[in-house]
Amino acid sequence: MEYIKDLLPKLEIFEVPSGTNAFDWTVPKEWTINDAWIADLSGNKLIDFKNNNLHVMGYATPVDRIVTRDELEAHLYSLADQPDAIPYITSYYKENYGFCLTQTQRDSLGDGPFHIFIDSRLFNGNMTYAELFIPGETQDEIFFSTYVCHPSMANNELSGPVVATALAKHIQSLEVRRYSYRFLFTVENIGATYYVSKNLTRMQSNIKAGWVLTCMGDNRTYSYVPSRVGNSLTDSISRRVLQDLGEEFKEYSWLDGGSDERRYNSPGVELPIGSLMRSMYGEYPEYHTSLDNLEVVSPAGLNGGLIMLQNAVRILETNFHLRINTLCEPQLGKRGLYPNISTKSSTAEVRNLMNVISFLDGNLDLLEIAEKCQVSYGEVLSIVERLKFAGLLDRI
Amino acid sequence: MEYIKDLLPKLEIFEVPSGTNAFDWTVPKEWTINDAWIADLSGNKLIDFKNNNLHVMGYATPVDRIVTRDELEAHLYSLADQPDAIPYITSYYKENYGFCLTQTQRDSLGDGPFHIFIDSRLFNGNMTYAELFIPGETQDEIFFSTYVCHPSMANNELSGPVVATALAKHIQSLEVRRYSYRFLFTVENIGATYYVSKNLTRMQSNIKAGWVLTCMGDNRTYSYVPSRVGNSLTDSISRRVLQDLGEEFKEYSWLDGGSDERRYNSPGVELPIGSLMRSMYGEYPEYHTSLDNLEVVSPAGLNGGLIMLQNAVRILETNFHLRINTLCEPQLGKRGLYPNISTKSSTAEVRNLMNVISFLDGNLDLLEIAEKCQVSYGEVLSIVERLKFAGLLDRI
Amino acid sequence: MEYIKDLLPKLEIFEVPSGTNAFDWTVPKEWTINDAWIADLSGNKLIDFKNNNLHVMGYATPVDRIVTRDELEAHLYSLADQPDAIPYITSYYKENYGFCLTQTQRDSLGDGPFHIFIDSRLFNGNMTYAELFIPGETQDEIFFSTYVCHPSMANNELSGPVVATALAKHIQSLEVRRYSYRFLFTVENIGATYYVSKNLTRMQSNIKAGWVLTCMGDNRTYSYVPSRVGNSLTDSISRRVLQDLGEEFKEYSWLDGGSDERRYNSPGVELPIGSLMRSMYGEYPEYHTSLDNLEVVSPAGLNGGLIMLQNAVRILETNFHLRINTLCEPQLGKRGLYPNISTKSSTAEVRNLMNVISFLDGNLDLLEIAEKCQVSYGEVLSIVERLKFAGLLDRI
Repeated sequence: MEYIKDLLPKLEIFEVPSGTNAFDWTVPKEWTINDAWIADLSGNKLIDFKNNNLHVMGYATPVDRIVTRDELEAHLYSLADQPDAIPYITSYYKENYGFCLTQTQRDSLGDGPFHIFIDSRLFNGNMTYAELFIPGETQDEIFFSTYVCHPSMANNELSGPVVATALAKHIQSLEVRRYSYRFLFTVENIGATYYVSKNLTRMQSNIKAGWVLTCMGDNRTYSYVPSRVGNSLTDSISRRVLQDLGEEFKEYSWLDGGSDERRYNSPGVELPIGSLMRSMYGEYPEYHTSLDNLEVVSPAGLNGGLIMLQNAVRILETNFHLRINTLCEPQLGKRGLYPNISTKSSTAEVRNLMNVISFLDGNLDLLEIAEKCQVSYGEVLSIVERLKFAGLLDRI
Repeated sequence: MEYIKDLLPKLEIFEVPSGTNAFDWTVPKEWTINDAWIADLSGNKLIDFKNNNLHVMGYATPVDRIVTRDELEAHLYSLADQPDAIPYITSYYKENYGFCLTQTQRDSLGDGPFHIFIDSRLFNGNMTYAELFIPGETQDEIFFSTYVCHPSMANNELSGPVVATALAKHIQSLEVRRYSYRFLFTVENIGATYYVSKNLTRMQSNIKAGWVLTCMGDNRTYSYVPSRVGNSLTDSISRRVLQDLGEEFKEYSWLDGGSDERRYNSPGVELPIGSLMRSMYGEYPEYHTSLDNLEVVSPAGLNGGLIMLQNAVRILETNFHLRINTLCEPQLGKRGLYPNISTKSSTAEVRNLMNVISFLDGNLDLLEIAEKCQVSYGEVLSIVERLKFAGLLDRI
Repeated sequence: MEYIKDLLPKLEIFEVPSGTNAFDWTVPKEWTINDAWIADLSGNKLIDFKNNNLHVMGYATPVDRIVTRDELEAHLYSLADQPDAIPYITSYYKENYGFCLTQTQRDSLGDGPFHIFIDSRLFNGNMTYAELFIPGETQDEIFFSTYVCHPSMANNELSGPVVATALAKHIQSLEVRRYSYRFLFTVENIGATYYVSKNLTRMQSNIKAGWVLTCMGDNRTYSYVPSRVGNSLTDSISRRVLQDLGEEFKEYSWLDGGSDERRYNSPGVELPIGSLMRSMYGEYPEYHTSLDNLEVVSPAGLNGGLIMLQNAVRILETNFHLRINTLCEPQLGKRGLYPNISTKSSTAEVRNLMNVISFLDGNLDLLEIAEKCQVSYGEVLSIVERLKFAGLLDRI
């Protein structure tokens, strides 16, 4: 959080004490971990948290015991079909302990007995989250939510805060902002629930669109999980952005989602939040294992994620209802916007221009016009700029 | 009717005199038939009603004549493409007589002359129908209509009254009934028309869904003819029931129907009645012939028809609008409804549970939630029961 | 115009002076052309307007010069991929001159120098248009617009005025007209724009449907460009007419159109005008060249175009909301409309009849009923006539 605050100085960091209620939930104890290992009785460390912090179950209670191989088995987690991956395992809501290791490591542990050791602590501390508000011309607000609870994995999840930070810097750099923007960096699930419990009324009255930012960094595909209603402004923008990228993408169903958009769209909360991603959580093999590392995430991948969101912001900031201010069609020739010589192909050359004009009746916004005309939002925008320059457009 | 009344003692039997008007129609004369045959002049009976009552045209007038083969031909009905089937033929609205026989019989009748004999009687009598009302908590009513006019054929139509009787017993056995239920056993067409003419106002104000029960007994497929509007409660339930059966079924169009749903959905009557069937009338080869017999209908076939309707009733009785009573998501772990350890696959294990919760906002009923979540109604119901038990649901 | 007035004596011819404003446009100068040619210096005419009036660019300014081949090139128009076609080229809104010729002619012109000569005149004159109004029982109006600005091409565009004239004669011959009909013969673009500028209020309050008539004469296919809204009465009728023809047709998108329906549907004008055609402009190879001649257009082609529009008029004149005046189903047998003997197939024989009856509830019009019943409008009409004759229908 402090690292991000260096990049975004207006970021505010908050602490929420353990035991604080948030709707049906309670902020759990804080957890710290100093060391954890499995050793043989000669003291040789076979599995060592210092090599990879995924080796210990997240939120594990302390232990210091000699155990048989059989006793140990109930506390081991590995993946038979990914023998070189350490799985990411947590137990937040029931006190437990465990070690996570590759299948290869598990198979070569030996017969034991073993000395198992976890030096962790569960105590009444705090849950930390941070928020950045970037004001615009109106209170209408665009909400970006990302989570910071298991950042030792790269695509899911460190890429989320990384791209969120870059996007926030981009938005801060805009000279004019039609909308206000808010970024939330928090803990998945309990952090989002707590935030909603504190801010529900304001969120419901201000938020017009929003996205959960996660899995923003690999370069394999683009993905979208729609909001629950499926036809919100968030959804229209997301579909248009992905379509216009001209690259492969997959639109999932609301039923496939599983991150904080669940909380934001829940009954009674009803915020139109979707999730634009690169490869979606659960859908790529490295997900929730030690293989979700810097080989999965790349500068190009992160940049693709950032561009997708910048394009969404561009639509938000420019998607007005405009009306052509002359009846029938404007005479474009005298304004240099139409070929002077009429040939067999002159209509085709200006087809998109004429089609966009034909829908500029003030009833549709530019996003809807792009859909109607089957052209990219960028092309609609470029046509609209030319018409504006020619004095042919009124803002509704 | 008396046989059914033995099984359903609260059944009420009604008689409607010949000549009674029903909208554009009049109840015709009653018909009895004692004997009918075609014989050679030596008195050998070539075709005998006592062998199969389909041998005489339904509603045939009496005759006792010596005729040539040519004269006979105009009164014979057979099916060239089903040489071993006796067709079922009637002439209710024009006085006429005729014999129905297999093509094989027809081809071997000989040159004649023949003695043809029908000892029937058309007289001012009655049309009989019966009705069973099963009261529920409200006057809102579910209507089942079946017909009893040509019960010598098995699938179309004796299976209809048979399954209707079993369904009525099932509904009577329910401890609580949200809806009232009404069963009508009548004559196809004129019987349904008469019933509507007597009860239209009550039917229009009370009936919320309903089905014509016919062709309930073979075990080849399941079929559905929707109501005319096509999107009534009857239709949603029918589609869900068939989809959840997990067996092959065919949804026909309103345009394909041809039984009493025609009367119930007609302009100005406008009742949302569909028809759930096994193999639909007109669509299976034995239809309206002597081959529609106990080889076509089976216990398994009838049971399938009954289960389909019981499932429809289960939906009707349980399809409420419910709302989850906590914001964001309930903490299911502490109620034993969610895995305590979070692994790569834990989200998938509870996906249907979380998806159903995400739509329990009180706006959708359980039937709509099953559709949204792409799961069976049974699974929605089972999830809802668990949530109710955990105190997490409010009835709207 | 005078020729058409001979055929349609009630046609009114109007003149609009050069310089008259029409929304964003101005009526341009009038153009006359006496002669135009390219000759060698011996006076041999290589290209001669008297052979084909397409040889001179439409609206060309006068010229009388000796030029090199290089100078000439900038003023030559030909089509490399159609070496025997003279293209049709105009320059209405920028003063310019040019010659149009086949690629073959261009290739054999020689090295020059050439004498080029155009004896044309641009002067303050008039734009001519004509209008025919055929009154009906109501002011509700059906609008047909055709253009007369480049009639030396056959399918696009002389076929438009030809079929419009025949259609007008047909409509005049109707004994009763539910709607009024208006035909406009004008200049494409500026002519339509001027007409809208003079008549917008009346057009918006009276016009219920309408079509631009162009490309009415070849016999290859049928085409439709919908109105901008896409679901107007014009569109429903057009789709039904084409479907019922039983011949191949192509429905284009609004985005594909490019004639005066653009002006009529434009923002703020919003008239529901589509375009029913044979082969659409831009889609057939002879379009806008000298090859669009009487080999492309045929009596059969023109007749097909006329029949299509007559069928549209038939729908307009007969498409009422009717209601069956008895509940449940009428007894058709006693009126000779239903087979007296019920056999396995009797339902199928009267299926369309029974289906049409089932939708005659007064809510749907006959066009919608044809759609619902998946039968032709002609069949619906024939059923309705029989039911009317039997006294079974009320007009809503």
